[in-house]
Amino acid sequence: MINYPNGKKIISSQSTVNHTSTSRRGMTLEHDINQTNAYYLSTDQAVIHKKPTPVQIVHVDYPRRTAAKITEAYFKVPSTTDYNGIYKGKYIDFEAKETASKTSFPFSSIHPHQIEHLKKVLAHGAIGFFIIRFKAYDETFFVEASKIIPHYLDGQKRSLSYKWFKQEGILIPFGLCPSINYLKVIDQLYF
Amino acid sequence: MINYPNGKKIISSQSTVNHTSTSRRGMTLEHDINQTNAYYLSTDQAVIHKKPTPVQIVHVDYPRRTAAKITEAYFKVPSTTDYNGIYKGKYIDFEAKETASKTSFPFSSIHPHQIEHLKKVLAHGAIGFFIIRFKAYDETFFVEASKIIPHYLDGQKRSLSYKWFKQEGILIPFGLCPSINYLKVIDQLYF
Repeated sequence: MINYPNGKKIISSQSTVNHTSTSRRGMTLEHDINQTNAYYLSTDQAVIHKKPTPVQIVHVDYPRRTAAKITEAYFKVPSTTDYNGIYKGKYIDFEAKETASKTSFPFSSIHPHQIEHLKKVLAHGAIGFFIIRFKAYDETFFVEASKIIPHYLDGQKRSLSYKWFKQEGILIPFGLCPSINYLKVIDQLYF
Repeated sequence: MINYPNGKKIISSQSTVNHTSTSRRGMTLEHDINQTNAYYLSTDQAVIHKKPTPVQIVHVDYPRRTAAKITEAYFKVPSTTDYNGIYKGKYIDFEAKETASKTSFPFSSIHPHQIEHLKKVLAHGAIGFFIIRFKAYDETFFVEASKIIPHYLDGQKRSLSYKWFKQEGILIPFGLCPSINYLKVIDQLYF
């Protein structure tokens, strides 16, 4: 994906309004993280990628002279987190989520598999965390996985409050390039 | 994927001969690595996963009451390797390929992006390597990425000979569970 230096795409006023454009009115968290990771890669600071969306492919057409076309496939539940890679010799692993809620982040948006996965990589020495955005405030928090996992697993709560993130998370300042400099937080916490 | 303890699927003699069954007459390298990684995960030795196949999704149908159905998508060229994860605190990254050739492994089966990616993760402290299988001999070699990358990049050769793998690679013994115990090689080389 190629972006303009200010991290925004130029959308022509004649562009057709479609399914996608409305959901990307503001820049999504995924977009910001991808831009940030591309910046880290190009400046040789870290190698962190988003994993492809897991898809169950059922049928593929192989037309002559053109590329194979997948004609039937379904989204699969991810068994790991979306992002991983390496930074300063350390294995990095995280999940990113945004919520429209003004009061809390619901656990329902994290799959049990992802919690299991983070628990395991932490046990093997990973730096594991969440990046959680409250869209209503345009605030993006870095939270160590070890802080969220116990709450998720004890089953007493179905969400964590915005207030909890203010206390336990670390606000990632928004910048132009990279837009969310989460390695800075990692430097403070782990190095 | 669930497999029988001997790592083989039971195929009924009445089973329909289809596109898939012929290409899986012997167990594929991918199958063996997935089984091995599942074993490492269940015995808490390492957390290493295959990344999902990268797919460009063009059209999705959202029928009522049933799962979203992808009706048009295309395979994308991967920008990284297929496998990564963590072992003993180290970031692990590798690509696996099998060849039907009896004499050499062709560079054409590795994407330039994957070489670039391995070069980068090595620079950040990863354990990066290839697992290459010569199907004709049923031999599977572990080769450090640092040994293959210079040959790939200098552009003088279009392949590496089977003999080269015998000299420079490490033969991974085939077992029942795990079928290809590549962590044993990593232990010898790096720990």
